[in-house]
Amino acid sequence: MLDARTAARRIMARCDELAAYTSMSGGIERVYLSPEHARVNRVAARWMREVGLDTWQDAAGNQCGHLAGRDPDAPSLLLGSHLDTVRDAGRYDGILGVLMAIEVVRALRPVSGTLRFGLDVVAFWDEEGARFGTALLGSSAMAGRWDEAWWDLTDEHGTTLRTAFTEFGLDPGRVQTAARSRESLAGYLEAHIEQGPELDDGGAPLGVVTSIASARRFAVQIDGEARHAGGARYEKRHDALLGASEVALAVERLCRAEHHIVGTVGRLETFPGAVNVVPGEARLTVDLRGEHDDDRDRVWGAITRELDEIAGRRGLTWSARELHEAPAVRCDTLLQDVVRAGIEHTGRRHVPALFSRAGHDAMAMGAVTGVGMLFLRNPDGISHHPDEAVSLADVETGLTALVATVEHLAREAG
Amino acid sequence: MLDARTAARRIMARCDELAAYTSMSGGIERVYLSPEHARVNRVAARWMREVGLDTWQDAAGNQCGHLAGRDPDAPSLLLGSHLDTVRDAGRYDGILGVLMAIEVVRALRPVSGTLRFGLDVVAFWDEEGARFGTALLGSSAMAGRWDEAWWDLTDEHGTTLRTAFTEFGLDPGRVQTAARSRESLAGYLEAHIEQGPELDDGGAPLGVVTSIASARRFAVQIDGEARHAGGARYEKRHDALLGASEVALAVERLCRAEHHIVGTVGRLETFPGAVNVVPGEARLTVDLRGEHDDDRDRVWGAITRELDEIAGRRGLTWSARELHEAPAVRCDTLLQDVVRAGIEHTGRRHVPALFSRAGHDAMAMGAVTGVGMLFLRNPDGISHHPDEAVSLADVETGLTALVATVEHLAREAG
Repeated sequence: MLDARTAARRIMARCDELAAYTSMSGGIERVYLSPEHARVNRVAARWMREVGLDTWQDAAGNQCGHLAGRDPDAPSLLLGSHLDTVRDAGRYDGILGVLMAIEVVRALRPVSGTLRFGLDVVAFWDEEGARFGTALLGSSAMAGRWDEAWWDLTDEHGTTLRTAFTEFGLDPGRVQTAARSRESLAGYLEAHIEQGPELDDGGAPLGVVTSIASARRFAVQIDGEARHAGGARYEKRHDALLGASEVALAVERLCRAEHHIVGTVGRLETFPGAVNVVPGEARLTVDLRGEHDDDRDRVWGAITRELDEIAGRRGLTWSARELHEAPAVRCDTLLQDVVRAGIEHTGRRHVPALFSRAGHDAMAMGAVTGVGMLFLRNPDGISHHPDEAVSLADVETGLTALVATVEHLAREAG
Repeated sequence: MLDARTAARRIMARCDELAAYTSMSGGIERVYLSPEHARVNRVAARWMREVGLDTWQDAAGNQCGHLAGRDPDAPSLLLGSHLDTVRDAGRYDGILGVLMAIEVVRALRPVSGTLRFGLDVVAFWDEEGARFGTALLGSSAMAGRWDEAWWDLTDEHGTTLRTAFTEFGLDPGRVQTAARSRESLAGYLEAHIEQGPELDDGGAPLGVVTSIASARRFAVQIDGEARHAGGARYEKRHDALLGASEVALAVERLCRAEHHIVGTVGRLETFPGAVNVVPGEARLTVDLRGEHDDDRDRVWGAITRELDEIAGRRGLTWSARELHEAPAVRCDTLLQDVVRAGIEHTGRRHVPALFSRAGHDAMAMGAVTGVGMLFLRNPDGISHHPDEAVSLADVETGLTALVATVEHLAREAG
């Protein structure tokens, strides 16, 4: 029923094909509500229809497909991941999970009339949060957790999310219709590259995810005073960049001192940003992840105390705006079991169980249904980078495991 | 002959008027070869003609004016400063010197037939280097020191200097014709706000400049590896921003340990610059100024050794490109004397002599003629900032001193 080798080859070729849909030259960048978003949805919809799915773009811009099971009114098992990317991205993060979901449907379509659930595929948008700073917008809409405050988020050009929605051809007033009810879903299952080195270090192609990181993201603004770089003596300076540099190093120091907490300053900008002007303003982002919410929050508290100390010493002021908050999400126990059984079906004796430091659409979907995740080995853990990789052999094994997982689930729940 | 009060009021009003020519909303920004450059040159040319100057825009975009003296073939005393600005600038840096030069011509026009030199006024462009990173482009062209390598400099949109020249309506092939010969010039005299607090601290409205800072500017690039902010453990990270943060703090530490050296990191950017990606690349600028070239170069050597150490420890690589180099320039002894005499003419007993940490067009003009500078008090030394100020009373006193300086010079050299 499943020709895993052929399917894996098709997945790899399609990852290459989608890499050409980009807004940057010489690299991959696809952000929410961009022209690339529309184009890639059309391609994904064609691939979905090819395996028998009925397709639609939902009110948040997610590309969806549905294939009925034995009972057309039964809930659906939702399979998928996301098609948006960070800037200068790799070609597998998110994309691989969407393409694997389509191949699962291809493999099971001949027996779909025997399945006790329908099969839905989703290609989410804005898992990464690269355009508006807030992540998981598409999956939050589907989980019925859309926040009306998001409409005023702006991208780097000052375009609001509301305007971007309208320009893309979506109706902000209808976003709530993207929400799926708890009753309509039999669970959410996502395959994804690990985005870390644990499977690679352990020599395992696949792993089952136990929980997904607790995360918070902040935009921090530091204000000092812009001055002429020649005329201003050090005693008169209130250099916002020097304060921000100390903050970036403090985030590293405070997080390294903890277990299971990582912190990243991914963006730092200075204003006015001229070679001969002491920076009067610096903006930076802080991304915190941890296995437990309370550890994460304690570290943020320590960072704010450092900010107070640095600002006081340098004559600066600071403020922080929270861009994103997601509590740690535990994967559903039944789904963990069937993912493990799916992996064992490929001949693996020992199935690694992992905690995911990276965020995933499954975090948002956890609010409305049970979630499970299968991780594929990511060589050297390189992700969010053009060198991001996954092997053809691992995709073949992963797809075999994912099809077996869905079959197990049909039996378990049947 | 000079109605200094009326002239000072006109200068202040015109500084306000020019502030409206800007490419940014809510602030002042006028860069080289921009639409604002063309518009402001037209306004300046009108004001020049109003006081009897023959006007032209030279082959580098500088706005020029000439009034003959007793002998139409005699060299000219060149008076001026610049009309370009940094981003979010004040309204006096450069502009004040151009407007004061025009008022000097207004005051002396009735006696111009008695002067042993002609009076030229120049409004230079790109003193700040805000668009292409390299400063003093306009005055370098006039000094005959144009560097052909500059044609390939690019602005933030990737536009080359060559293309910007053509789009502005200038002919790159004719830039050498902007050069003035040594024989055609009787000296260069520039009035400017101090861009530092020394006059203000000492309670003096005016000062004579002894020399202008030795300066070097570098663009430093630090390369690491972009990684997913969740998945990448600290041991696997090569975070370019953390390296850059250490560099910025090292520049401050190394310069503070020296006398008469100041260093500034004015711009820092990260790539890809996403909230959830470990920065794989950071770019920063380093601006160094000193009273002596050898001290400045020794500090840059120390900074490069820090860069080696930081890069080695964090698994990063770095490179630096020199954007600008200007040796310290001593002001002409005769011009220092007549500027001092001009200031004494306003009733000041004690005339402060200052070393200028800020760069000025006089640095470039020093290659082709003797240069002199008059500094005006700058409250609290705030410059390159919207709060940059100069008082009406100080402009009145400064203009009286500058007119007296030119009259002294006409006698001295006659």
